[in-house]
Amino acid sequence: MSIPEITQQLLAAKQEKALSFADLEKILKRDEVWIAAVFYRQASASPEEAKLLVETLGLDPTYIQKLTEFPLKGLGPVVPTDPLIYRFYEIMQVYGMAIKAVIHDKFGDGIMSAIDFTLDVEKESDPKGDRVKVIMSGKFLPYKKW
Amino acid sequence: MSIPEITQQLLAAKQEKALSFADLEKILKRDEVWIAAVFYRQASASPEEAKLLVETLGLDPTYIQKLTEFPLKGLGPVVPTDPLIYRFYEIMQVYGMAIKAVIHDKFGDGIMSAIDFTLDVEKESDPKGDRVKVIMSGKFLPYKKW
Amino acid sequence: MSIPEITQQLLAAKQEKALSFADLEKILKRDEVWIAAVFYRQASASPEEAKLLVETLGLDPTYIQKLTEFPLKGLGPVVPTDPLIYRFYEIMQVYGMAIKAVIHDKFGDGIMSAIDFTLDVEKESDPKGDRVKVIMSGKFLPYKKW
Amino acid sequence: MSIPEITQQLLAAKQEKALSFADLEKILKRDEVWIAAVFYRQASASPEEAKLLVETLGLDPTYIQKLTEFPLKGLGPVVPTDPLIYRFYEIMQVYGMAIKAVIHDKFGDGIMSAIDFTLDVEKESDPKGDRVKVIMSGKFLPYKKW
Amino acid sequence: MSIPEITQQLLAAKQEKALSFADLEKILKRDEVWIAAVFYRQASASPEEAKLLVETLGLDPTYIQKLTEFPLKGLGPVVPTDPLIYRFYEIMQVYGMAIKAVIHDKFGDGIMSAIDFTLDVEKESDPKGDRVKVIMSGKFLPYKKW
Amino acid sequence: MSIPEITQQLLAAKQEKALSFADLEKILKRDEVWIAAVFYRQASASPEEAKLLVETLGLDPTYIQKLTEFPLKGLGPVVPTDPLIYRFYEIMQVYGMAIKAVIHDKFGDGIMSAIDFTLDVEKESDPKGDRVKVIMSGKFLPYKKW
Amino acid sequence: MSIPEITQQLLAAKQEKALSFADLEKILKRDEVWIAAVFYRQASASPEEAKLLVETLGLDPTYIQKLTEFPLKGLGPVVPTDPLIYRFYEIMQVYGMAIKAVIHDKFGDGIMSAIDFTLDVEKESDPKGDRVKVIMSGKFLPYKKW
Amino acid sequence: MSIPEITQQLLAAKQEKALSFADLEKILKRDEVWIAAVFYRQASASPEEAKLLVETLGLDPTYIQKLTEFPLKGLGPVVPTDPLIYRFYEIMQVYGMAIKAVIHDKFGDGIMSAIDFTLDVEKESDPKGDRVKVIMSGKFLPYKKW
Amino acid sequence: MSIPEITQQLLAAKQEKALSFADLEKILKRDEVWIAAVFYRQASASPEEAKLLVETLGLDPTYIQKLTEFPLKGLGPVVPTDPLIYRFYEIMQVYGMAIKAVIHDKFGDGIMSAIDFTLDVEKESDPKGDRVKVIMSGKFLPYKKW
Amino acid sequence: MSIPEITQQLLAAKQEKALSFADLEKILKRDEVWIAAVFYRQASASPEEAKLLVETLGLDPTYIQKLTEFPLKGLGPVVPTDPLIYRFYEIMQVYGMAIKAVIHDKFGDGIMSAIDFTLDVEKESDPKGDRVKVIMSGKFLPYKKW
Repeated sequence: MSIPEITQQLLAAKQEKALSFADLEKILKRDEVWIAAVFYRQASASPEEAKLLVETLGLDPTYIQKLTEFPLKGLGPVVPTDPLIYRFYEIMQVYGMAIKAVIHDKFGDGIMSAIDFTLDVEKESDPKGDRVKVIMSGKFLPYKKW
Repeated sequence: MSIPEITQQLLAAKQEKALSFADLEKILKRDEVWIAAVFYRQASASPEEAKLLVETLGLDPTYIQKLTEFPLKGLGPVVPTDPLIYRFYEIMQVYGMAIKAVIHDKFGDGIMSAIDFTLDVEKESDPKGDRVKVIMSGKFLPYKKW
Repeated sequence: MSIPEITQQLLAAKQEKALSFADLEKILKRDEVWIAAVFYRQASASPEEAKLLVETLGLDPTYIQKLTEFPLKGLGPVVPTDPLIYRFYEIMQVYGMAIKAVIHDKFGDGIMSAIDFTLDVEKESDPKGDRVKVIMSGKFLPYKKW
Repeated sequence: MSIPEITQQLLAAKQEKALSFADLEKILKRDEVWIAAVFYRQASASPEEAKLLVETLGLDPTYIQKLTEFPLKGLGPVVPTDPLIYRFYEIMQVYGMAIKAVIHDKFGDGIMSAIDFTLDVEKESDPKGDRVKVIMSGKFLPYKKW
Repeated sequence: MSIPEITQQLLAAKQEKALSFADLEKILKRDEVWIAAVFYRQASASPEEAKLLVETLGLDPTYIQKLTEFPLKGLGPVVPTDPLIYRFYEIMQVYGMAIKAVIHDKFGDGIMSAIDFTLDVEKESDPKGDRVKVIMSGKFLPYKKW
Repeated sequence: MSIPEITQQLLAAKQEKALSFADLEKILKRDEVWIAAVFYRQASASPEEAKLLVETLGLDPTYIQKLTEFPLKGLGPVVPTDPLIYRFYEIMQVYGMAIKAVIHDKFGDGIMSAIDFTLDVEKESDPKGDRVKVIMSGKFLPYKKW
Repeated sequence: MSIPEITQQLLAAKQEKALSFADLEKILKRDEVWIAAVFYRQASASPEEAKLLVETLGLDPTYIQKLTEFPLKGLGPVVPTDPLIYRFYEIMQVYGMAIKAVIHDKFGDGIMSAIDFTLDVEKESDPKGDRVKVIMSGKFLPYKKW
Repeated sequence: MSIPEITQQLLAAKQEKALSFADLEKILKRDEVWIAAVFYRQASASPEEAKLLVETLGLDPTYIQKLTEFPLKGLGPVVPTDPLIYRFYEIMQVYGMAIKAVIHDKFGDGIMSAIDFTLDVEKESDPKGDRVKVIMSGKFLPYKKW
Repeated sequence: MSIPEITQQLLAAKQEKALSFADLEKILKRDEVWIAAVFYRQASASPEEAKLLVETLGLDPTYIQKLTEFPLKGLGPVVPTDPLIYRFYEIMQVYGMAIKAVIHDKFGDGIMSAIDFTLDVEKESDPKGDRVKVIMSGKFLPYKKW
Repeated sequence: MSIPEITQQLLAAKQEKALSFADLEKILKRDEVWIAAVFYRQASASPEEAKLLVETLGLDPTYIQKLTEFPLKGLGPVVPTDPLIYRFYEIMQVYGMAIKAVIHDKFGDGIMSAIDFTLDVEKESDPKGDRVKVIMSGKFLPYKKW
């Protein structure tokens, strides 16, 4: 994956201003993961959100429009090579069928939506080493019969 | 992916006994997702856990030993075709870089462990449609320098 | 793709009884495409539907249960080689971006659900050669912000 | 997929003029999906159509000729990663064999043409959430024997 | 590719009876290439054709029905490894764009049908070494605009 | 596949001069398909042929040398996505084994050469729709034993 | 790659009789590499050669016919994993362009035939360690123009 | 594969000076195949060899250093599409197991080195058509036990 | 990867006799990793080693011969999905170029042999958690020039 | 893999200053493999480490910041073609299951961490040819049950 030009500009401005995604969360009133997804052009902002983000980062107003466009989504590479991202892929390789079995047990035949969906990342303090907590919440969509 | 013989036997017995994974959770005192992973031979049980599971399901004791072996893990197919499992793959395609950015912001250079790791699936009631909640918790592992 | 044993049995019984999927549509009060999806174990029937189907086809009652299980879905091969199925893949190769652009124009950022979804196949008489009409209807799911 | 230069110019002009594909449909007297396919260089326009489109968008006349050339077609990536486009791929993974079975039932051995073919996208209002309706119509082509 | 059971039976019977595909062409009044495609279950025969073929080869009448079914088509492997078949793939790798350019020059934007299509293989005597002549004839299908 | 710079120049000049490949066939005394292969740098011209082609198209003489070089051949993408080129790939998927069987019947164990090889594209008028006729002729090469 | 049944039988018989391929070379008056290719069903023997081979190995005469059939050739896996076979693949990865350049220098535009082709494997004694010598000889085939 | 800039410069200079690789062999006292591998940056030259090559070709001395660097090796594409290079890949597909069997017969369990390795290309005159002779010689490396 | 029959028998016998690979190391006087490679048919034993191993495990003497045969090596799947094995693949993804750079710095242009090669696995006690130590030792093979 | 601009600058400066990675190890007090990983942007340096490295190499201070960023890791190509790197991939193909078996024997179900991990490359003098010694040490991570 090559990082798009606009993403590089956003990341550079964020670094220069010494802002974390958590700081941006407070300013934009949106979750930091969703804001990071806007940075990588995987989510589209409203004009107001885009304006606030671009102004906060002190970037050229021409970026506002671009951040509201509906992007072509997806990283591209079939199997991710970055170790952090690969771990999530591995979790599905190892626990995917188990998750499917439990969801079917609890809900019936259907899926968890990846569109009507939220995702949070939290830091859990732990004396044996801090933990990354990822909470996903997606609407259950039962298969329609017709 | 072809479902292994032992998995088919376990699933058939579970169905015949009309047990849910949540029921097994109460009996084995292990999370239902982990138990489902044992069903699919992606996790290995202790001899006691295996014995209790096999007896609960009324299966042949020869299965006990097999469930304690350390399996060759992973579903195999590079991109999953099952819609339920694919959605998790898609989440990484769309939000993977955002998650990476936020984790690096909060923790520094490193990864979330997929080994020192737990995963829960919960049902959230919602008047607009029930939601699937998936909670992952993995130890943060910082890159070692040497 | 190897055709599962149960699918072969269902197809053989359907042929022996000289029933078309359209005939089964009248009996099961379900669309013929959905019924064909049940044949190929890509959709799960209710116990009543399964019973009616198995009895209509004169098959062993042990099949009833199997048809109600939640299957692992998807054909598997990445690019289909069968010319009929490939044409639909080609349509997405050629018109996919155009469809995406028009849907975004009409609905905003989101997708057409493939779960809350129906699909009909109709025969259109035409003096220049009959036409296949395929009508898909899926709920629009807007991307959630959080 | 990288978006060709000419497509970016067409999209930018369309946005600046605040024209939807439905607006262009009225001006060009061609379906909006086909027009979007011309934007993405997956369909070739006649000189008159190209002239009208370029003038409507206020672009340089040198584009007219380019839009009439016969393009090398296809998105390229084997499995699409964009969620909207992937859903159509998934529909074939899940319902492809069922569609094939029903078409064979109704028409015999042959295919639906993807060339003598039209595709419409419509918005269906629905109190439970609007629906995307996609209607494909392709000539049935029976396999020739010789 | 594994050769299907029925194909092996047909080939064995053909060899035992010392019949060439050219001999079968005279008996069935169908081209030998098409007959060979029936052998490999890539083309479906009419009941009369299937009956004549099965009787000519002295095989069990139960095969008749099978030869009339509409098969799932395609060899499967993405790049063929058999040298004879690979050469045709290579011809497209090397001359594909040239063929496309010449067809567009002569016919406009469209394709050669692979369904309304015939293919002959002939032996051309040549003092410098006999030549294989392959003649394909497919209906030109112009892209429909709508 | 990205079209090489030199190919774009040749195609643009051909269009500007309103020459078809059939026109070039008369001027160069070479088949139009072979000439198109030279355009796409899949075949190498003699210095005389290159000079005549470059002069006919009114291009810079520096191109002459380039057209005589021995190119690295092949389109590259494993499965072609352009519908016109894909159809030839599909023909091999569907009829490849049949062609192999008939060639072996007529010639024995060996292949059709793709090097000592010619290919013609002709337009056949037909009241039911014009047909594309493709005639391939390649030397039969029997497997050498040693 | 799974080793075909007939190959396993031939190899087992060869081992039981303690015959090397070099021994078979003396008996069949064919090169040992070609004979090994017959074992793996990548080359077809004449009836006399097959009879002599089957009798030498003391196998059932029904094998004779099978060894004369024209096989579907090729190992199958795209990149070989066996280290001995991979080295030849690597040689082409590293020296392929160099070989191409030198052949073009010496012969012009064309290829080395892999059909009118022989291959010998010899053992070269060397005090620093014996060497494997592989000698390939293939007819040069110049590209035909037409 | 895209040809590196330095390779293009070397090839252009070689052509301008009308030098064959065989001429360079006489000047550098290295085999022409190895020299061609240096051109394609698949082999690294000593400073003396690089200086002599650069001076012979009349190129800028800054190239000397570059030719001595240890390159990242390999063509890249998994299955080569160029017909000349593909033939060598095909030889391994067809004769790979036979070569493995004969090498094991003659040497035991081990491989032919592709590093302690030489490769010559020779032209063999033959009244039935000249032949390409490729001679590989690699040290046999027996598997170490430990 | 499917585990071969013989490997399953060896592993079952080892488990029944409650022998670790370290125990077998003491009996066979070979490293436990090498012995495990023999179990998986990736290394070939001498007749004496095979006899000792088969007798130690109390298996049928017919296995002795099989363990001395030279196997077709390699796991097969391109990217391993088992987390333990994947980590080694990831190490090469992340540190491969660094290792290459350091080896070239220390040794010049060449490789570490994977044939004249040994590999040990050791357990290092560590209060912060035991460590796996893997020590590879392979002969450096400099690229031969010729 | 294309080498990033920053890596090329670092390597050029290192060469100009005639510094080996072992020299840098002494200056930075970090292992040379880890330093090389920083060069290839697979590991991130602290500000102090980055400053020391950039100053030692006499590069522009703007590089300091870049070397501290958390990179997207991994080479990318699924199967490496460079022979040196491929050998490590091959070692896993051949010995991967054996290593897994021995680690499970010694530690139980779990993996060797590739994050809490160090890797050293050493040169072992040997009269039969120097050897490359690679020592990996990773924390054992047992699978968590929950």
